Amino acid sequence: MASTSPGYGITIRVEGPSSSQPVALATTIISDAGATITALDVVESHLEKVVLDITCDTTDLEHAEQITLALSKNPGLTVRKVSDRTFLLHLGGKIEVSSKVPLKTRDDLSRAYTPGVARICQAIVDDPADARRLTIKRNTVAVVTDGSAVLGLGNIGPAAALPVMEGKAALFKRFVDVDAWPVCLDTQDVDEIVRTVQLIAPVYGGINLEDISAPRCFEIERRLRELLDIPVFHDDQHGTAIVVSAALRNALRLVNKELKDVKIVMSGAGAAGTAIARLLVLRGASQIIGFDKDGVISKSLLRSDDEMRNWFIDNSNPDNYTGNISGAMKGADIFIGVSAPNVLTERDVASMAPNSIIFALANPDPEIDPVVARKYATVVATGRSDQPNQINNVLAFPGIFRGLLDANAHKITDKLLVAAAEAIADCVSPEQLNASFIVPSVFDPNVTKAVAAAVKRSV
Amino acid sequence: MASTSPGYGITIRVEGPSSSQPVALATTIISDAGATITALDVVESHLEKVVLDITCDTTDLEHAEQITLALSKNPGLTVRKVSDRTFLLHLGGKIEVSSKVPLKTRDDLSRAYTPGVARICQAIVDDPADARRLTIKRNTVAVVTDGSAVLGLGNIGPAAALPVMEGKAALFKRFVDVDAWPVCLDTQDVDEIVRTVQLIAPVYGGINLEDISAPRCFEIERRLRELLDIPVFHDDQHGTAIVVSAALRNALRLVNKELKDVKIVMSGAGAAGTAIARLLVLRGASQIIGFDKDGVISKSLLRSDDEMRNWFIDNSNPDNYTGNISGAMKGADIFIGVSAPNVLTERDVASMAPNSIIFALANPDPEIDPVVARKYATVVATGRSDQPNQINNVLAFPGIFRGLLDANAHKITDKLLVAAAEAIADCVSPEQLNASFIVPSVFDPNVTKAVAAAVKRSV
Repeated sequence: MASTSPGYGITIRVEGPSSSQPVALATTIISDAGATITALDVVESHLEKVVLDITCDTTDLEHAEQITLALSKNPGLTVRKVSDRTFLLHLGGKIEVSSKVPLKTRDDLSRAYTPGVARICQAIVDDPADARRLTIKRNTVAVVTDGSAVLGLGNIGPAAALPVMEGKAALFKRFVDVDAWPVCLDTQDVDEIVRTVQLIAPVYGGINLEDISAPRCFEIERRLRELLDIPVFHDDQHGTAIVVSAALRNALRLVNKELKDVKIVMSGAGAAGTAIARLLVLRGASQIIGFDKDGVISKSLLRSDDEMRNWFIDNSNPDNYTGNISGAMKGADIFIGVSAPNVLTERDVASMAPNSIIFALANPDPEIDPVVARKYATVVATGRSDQPNQINNVLAFPGIFRGLLDANAHKITDKLLVAAAEAIADCVSPEQLNASFIVPSVFDPNVTKAVAAAVKRSV
Repeated sequence: MASTSPGYGITIRVEGPSSSQPVALATTIISDAGATITALDVVESHLEKVVLDITCDTTDLEHAEQITLALSKNPGLTVRKVSDRTFLLHLGGKIEVSSKVPLKTRDDLSRAYTPGVARICQAIVDDPADARRLTIKRNTVAVVTDGSAVLGLGNIGPAAALPVMEGKAALFKRFVDVDAWPVCLDTQDVDEIVRTVQLIAPVYGGINLEDISAPRCFEIERRLRELLDIPVFHDDQHGTAIVVSAALRNALRLVNKELKDVKIVMSGAGAAGTAIARLLVLRGASQIIGFDKDGVISKSLLRSDDEMRNWFIDNSNPDNYTGNISGAMKGADIFIGVSAPNVLTERDVASMAPNSIIFALANPDPEIDPVVARKYATVVATGRSDQPNQINNVLAFPGIFRGLLDANAHKITDKLLVAAAEAIADCVSPEQLNASFIVPSVFDPNVTKAVAAAVKRSV
């Protein structure tokens, strides 16, 4: 049975005559229907009737409807209303702009706006570097998308992508007090995206590219890095690569293997897959065999004008393996999937080398059921929050931008990505490290601090 | 002597032996030097010495230095440090992005970010109108500039314009709880500005153009209004025109004249001047004579591809006057200046019709000294906060956008501009109305409410 998720949390207002014991009755019905009750409030309690708000996580919309129906059907209960907690949370959006200055009196206005503000403008004219001191630039990041590769939803466009960008901005604030602003672009033309980001850049101290499909994301990032004097970071590439690299470092510690010696099979060679491969090669990996939906990536493939594709061809598959993924899995030490559900079979996993490591990161349905994977592999990680070892970019991007902004950084270097990965890995102490704990909790406050410090040292 | 301003406020930390009575000594020196003391804190008081923080408004930087010097020279006092309050206020910028959702637990993350957020994205894919319900769009305005005509500073570019846009965003929040975000564009090409605003528009419920020079601002506004389904408002044009129109309505009430009968001389035919003239014609004015730096605007001028210039030629100067501004001022009922300091002489003002009205709005130095103007005119208004009847856009733009957003408006109409002007004028009751009070206070909470309501009714 699919697991319940707070993403499908509902609050049901239900009432019944006191004589029918509505609390016990309703909670039994909901539990029997497979939902997870997370809160219960008695809203009204009279001699003749009781009114309850019961909050529970369900597996999906259909499940939520089943539960409501089961309650309605019981003669002892009446459902008053059902609130979808995720939708309630999103009403009116998730972020707002706040003023940091007092604006109560005419004098306040004279300082924060005209005429006082003219002196600040003039100071920036006189010394453009003062923009970092006297404006929001030094703490502000643009979260830029064209809506072309949003979560598992695909190309849904800029308006529908906005809730994700707002969420990202909220996380930036929550974890590292960075002011991030959503920039959802109504174009998917590479030249237009590059030019637009260049034109809006004066306000920002950094650019976080988000959910832009490959291979366009590679060219956009490269060109923006050439054009801008502020760091440009594509989270789907580097954020994922950093956390995977950190997790893999700790997993290898556990199984006593070295990155330079292991055979790695990868499924997925898009934005995330390519960035993961690059970072692993940078850290010494020499035997990566990559697969995409057309099969293995080998020297026999034609080179194209997709620079990252060419990189993958040049830097993987040293023995020019040309078979399928099942063949490659035989004797492999590590599998890393950033692709699609159920790419692997149980037999594939069983055929790996002893003490194997499986990162099945397709979301929400991994490349192989983690329960099955765990029968054979020593370490299993997924992208899911309801499984141990969640590979979550929240471990990386907040600290990285905190460090970049604090260091007044102009560029992002490979050295910096490696340092961030090592900082995350080192947040798990040798005593804590075990097969179910290869990455720290996203709520561990040391993580963002350690990452930011490592980034600052590497700038 | 120039008047002191909180825009040039400083805080001086000064100390002296208790025996020299430093409080009396320092305040006397500062007052004698012409500064306005606004606060005094005794920071430390010992038997042997006293430490003070004295805050005062000065006239300019040189004046602030004179005051510091005068304190230093006195043997009974030592200046420890001088803080510039306007600069202190601006450190790190004036706005920030805040999260409206809890992000304390893993469940919170699951609702506000993945996987829960995917359901919100999908809802917007299914019904694009839901973007107004489930994202920040419905309360969010872009404050867009290219930095080409910033305050009195001119073409200072996007980075130096940012403090003004931040200030505007802070005012939006303060007065009507609108979330406004600065968009400072690193181009002054009309096509690029139009295209960029079009591309970033999905996040916003309205566009406020700001400090873009004429005539480019006219074309940018017109084209964006054609392209976008959200309202586009150029504050330098329409905000100013609305407040001038409101103030003029009340001034005419005071002197018992009708707009359709009066002779109006205008100095300045840029963004603000043209918009003022348009709104006054719309409300019935028939005798406007406009001047710009090249002289009178008359039918004998060549038409160009500047659409607003052509409008001005077609709709003003009905008798085709071709003399200078002094000649035009003879017998004029109203002068409106949005141009440059000292355009008028005392003799010009003296030659106006009885019960004349003068709006000298050039900032910080008006077209005629208001003290001189007041010797002859019945009503005098300026753009200055230290004079009565300040013509301040803060009376208009917050309520206008509040109304537009609440009404889910797609367009801005002339009817709406007129309604906003009337709403502002009507906030001054007949009992309150006098020559020194023709517009309400910017801090009168009824103003934004009245303007928003008028706009909603007119959409």
